[in-house]
Amino acid sequence: MDELTHFDEQGAARMVDVGDKPATRRSALAAGRIRMHPATLARIRQGGADKGDVLGVARIAGIMGAKRTADLIPLCHPLALSRVEIAFAPDLEASAIDCQARVETTAPTGVEMEALCAVQVALLTIYDMCKARDRAMSIEQVRLLEKHGGRSGHWRRPDQA
Amino acid sequence: MDELTHFDEQGAARMVDVGDKPATRRSALAAGRIRMHPATLARIRQGGADKGDVLGVARIAGIMGAKRTADLIPLCHPLALSRVEIAFAPDLEASAIDCQARVETTAPTGVEMEALCAVQVALLTIYDMCKARDRAMSIEQVRLLEKHGGRSGHWRRPDQA
Amino acid sequence: MDELTHFDEQGAARMVDVGDKPATRRSALAAGRIRMHPATLARIRQGGADKGDVLGVARIAGIMGAKRTADLIPLCHPLALSRVEIAFAPDLEASAIDCQARVETTAPTGVEMEALCAVQVALLTIYDMCKARDRAMSIEQVRLLEKHGGRSGHWRRPDQA
Amino acid sequence: MDELTHFDEQGAARMVDVGDKPATRRSALAAGRIRMHPATLARIRQGGADKGDVLGVARIAGIMGAKRTADLIPLCHPLALSRVEIAFAPDLEASAIDCQARVETTAPTGVEMEALCAVQVALLTIYDMCKARDRAMSIEQVRLLEKHGGRSGHWRRPDQA
Amino acid sequence: MDELTHFDEQGAARMVDVGDKPATRRSALAAGRIRMHPATLARIRQGGADKGDVLGVARIAGIMGAKRTADLIPLCHPLALSRVEIAFAPDLEASAIDCQARVETTAPTGVEMEALCAVQVALLTIYDMCKARDRAMSIEQVRLLEKHGGRSGHWRRPDQA
Amino acid sequence: MDELTHFDEQGAARMVDVGDKPATRRSALAAGRIRMHPATLARIRQGGADKGDVLGVARIAGIMGAKRTADLIPLCHPLALSRVEIAFAPDLEASAIDCQARVETTAPTGVEMEALCAVQVALLTIYDMCKARDRAMSIEQVRLLEKHGGRSGHWRRPDQA
Repeated sequence: MDELTHFDEQGAARMVDVGDKPATRRSALAAGRIRMHPATLARIRQGGADKGDVLGVARIAGIMGAKRTADLIPLCHPLALSRVEIAFAPDLEASAIDCQARVETTAPTGVEMEALCAVQVALLTIYDMCKARDRAMSIEQVRLLEKHGGRSGHWRRPDQA
Repeated sequence: MDELTHFDEQGAARMVDVGDKPATRRSALAAGRIRMHPATLARIRQGGADKGDVLGVARIAGIMGAKRTADLIPLCHPLALSRVEIAFAPDLEASAIDCQARVETTAPTGVEMEALCAVQVALLTIYDMCKARDRAMSIEQVRLLEKHGGRSGHWRRPDQA
Repeated sequence: MDELTHFDEQGAARMVDVGDKPATRRSALAAGRIRMHPATLARIRQGGADKGDVLGVARIAGIMGAKRTADLIPLCHPLALSRVEIAFAPDLEASAIDCQARVETTAPTGVEMEALCAVQVALLTIYDMCKARDRAMSIEQVRLLEKHGGRSGHWRRPDQA
Repeated sequence: MDELTHFDEQGAARMVDVGDKPATRRSALAAGRIRMHPATLARIRQGGADKGDVLGVARIAGIMGAKRTADLIPLCHPLALSRVEIAFAPDLEASAIDCQARVETTAPTGVEMEALCAVQVALLTIYDMCKARDRAMSIEQVRLLEKHGGRSGHWRRPDQA
Repeated sequence: MDELTHFDEQGAARMVDVGDKPATRRSALAAGRIRMHPATLARIRQGGADKGDVLGVARIAGIMGAKRTADLIPLCHPLALSRVEIAFAPDLEASAIDCQARVETTAPTGVEMEALCAVQVALLTIYDMCKARDRAMSIEQVRLLEKHGGRSGHWRRPDQA
Repeated sequence: MDELTHFDEQGAARMVDVGDKPATRRSALAAGRIRMHPATLARIRQGGADKGDVLGVARIAGIMGAKRTADLIPLCHPLALSRVEIAFAPDLEASAIDCQARVETTAPTGVEMEALCAVQVALLTIYDMCKARDRAMSIEQVRLLEKHGGRSGHWRRPDQA
């Protein structure tokens, strides 16, 4: 397959026709991380209802970000998501916070972009809330881990196996 | 400074009060990259008006993404941006495309988040357009390179010096 | 049932998984009112195509507000609404305008939030249009009156029976 | 003043011309409450980082809601908000949660609608998160408490004095 | 049929109830054109990846505009579009660029408005990009050419036959 | 001037830098029309608070559309509009409704696009509300009539003089 499906034979961008594909159950799992100064990580981990829950805010932003995917990514199909979940885990050795997003739908096309969008918006929100302390944080390894459903079936990232 | 300014003393999230800060000229430069299979990179580089201009679509998405920042990031102030520019460069050795976004405004607060958002949406759009060929692409090193203006003045990422 | 379904067992917020629930016909009826100075109510009632149709504008705002529910309420599922209707009635004794919104869909989850959102945006629009005359108006009794469909079936507000 | 400024002399709705008004500092404080079953209130008060922080989610929704005001209320002017803060307090006697929102800007027009929108979206989010337990909650007393700035100067709700 | 279905018998606007209509395959083809100075047309036609691809940007804007239809048109039903394609063709004699948009969905109601919105946003984007050279451009003949599906079946614009 | 300012010297699209331009008072007046069957025009003219006020709904949609311009048109700067007014007039001879939109701001760039967007959304809303009766309506002559302010000063459409 040499062609990019988002272009027609003249090279014009298009929202790919999925009208002949059946609506089936689909899920996607994406991940990413934000690296930061160890003191910033310590401050986030101390947080909570009384000291400021950075990850709680980022989780909400990520969930809402998943719902805005078709507004942001030009050729994405609008989809009615049936599930969005976001999890965070600190990685002390790497001085980072890992984020995973799982998104599901029943639709003729998949939700990879929605899961990736959720991760990106969640990580950007962490950056925003901590940037006054630590401007040099960086977002890394934003990638798809796994997807189910659709014509291409189950896919799992090779280096995750 | 031990506190995160986005929380009050009880730990409640807030949009920080910038009402006493003067509106001054501010700019931010952010960057990131998407790594991909060499064949995907080759395909993108061949593109253009007749074969499908992946980077042209991603650039538009990134510019529009900068304008949606305050909609996506919960505690960001809405700002009237005066400039958004996005540049791409292939890195053949790393089999990646680098993206930089420069954003400017005249406002009481900075545009770091707008520049980072532009980069993220541009890179996600590249992912979207090429994912049918190459699902394992990953987004890396999304970070602020430089900012000007405001009380904290000029900041340049240490490892860029 | 002691749990709030919008949180997982660790207390993390999530968009609840409705992927196993069938898409069925659902409706919701919500209501609310805005109390105002009798002169403001009289002015609204005089309105119309030639004097300014406050309720006509508020009705449009409410219908559009129903469509924005999933953008506003973090954990709401995006839904394709099949019907939105908004009715107003003056209550001269209470010096108030009552608003009711009926919303329907065929979906795996209900439209209570859409109906409540429609009422809130409609009443806020009345406030906006009359606030220069009457800043002390207040919005009261925004509540669900009735819902049909879904696993919990028909529900009618006890004090409406 | 008998006229509603949002209509012209033929009764056509319009976004009022504020082009001749100077940009000055303005603030608004709005409030509202949601009444619920005492067991629901107890459940919310138990919440927090480990059991589910209903008020934390509602606060984020309210802040984001303030930023969407001009999208929702047809004749509102778009404004660059400089501050948004939302506070909740339980009222055990009334079995309710009180919400207050303070919004500020430097602009030619006020932020009353933004403060009211923040309250409404915050209270609707509480409803959404608890509705599976307690469908009969109601939103009450959504009103402006105070405003500063602009031609009409300081206004304080009479019954608050 | 003398009635406008978007109003009830009292003249109140409503989002028409389509809950009893089956979801079927529907498509719409709309068109329009923008007339301009011959030098502006020549400049657009020279464009491309190296000189600036006006039509490439306009195509993306049109596709994204189709997805925003229910946000813009008050009584439109939100729909999950399955296909959006936009084509441009120069008309040298008329010194104009013609635009056609094809939109499809499987839904209980049609996509005429989505196709028209796509055309309008695409043509406005051409105007925006060229207005510094040619402020007198005008948009003409925005109209539906054809629709398929739904109770009214196939319709083709009479003057297209 | 041979260059399109929305592209850089390599042909990459950009949001033009207006950071060095002063914020000054600007206005734009745009117009357009929708042609329809005489019976459709008669039906619209009969409308009003009791029979359905098509033009009232379209006016609100147009005003809200002006506020969405920077969301729709990729390279438009976000602006805080200070005035939006929309007027309709029937043209019996042409069997059409004319629409004019006047938009103002104080900003470093003009509001031509906002005025054109308001006209387009208003006319599309008329189409939407009447399309069940008259699918063959067409939108014509959408154009800028006049602009004031900014470096290029006052411009009036030649054929309007």
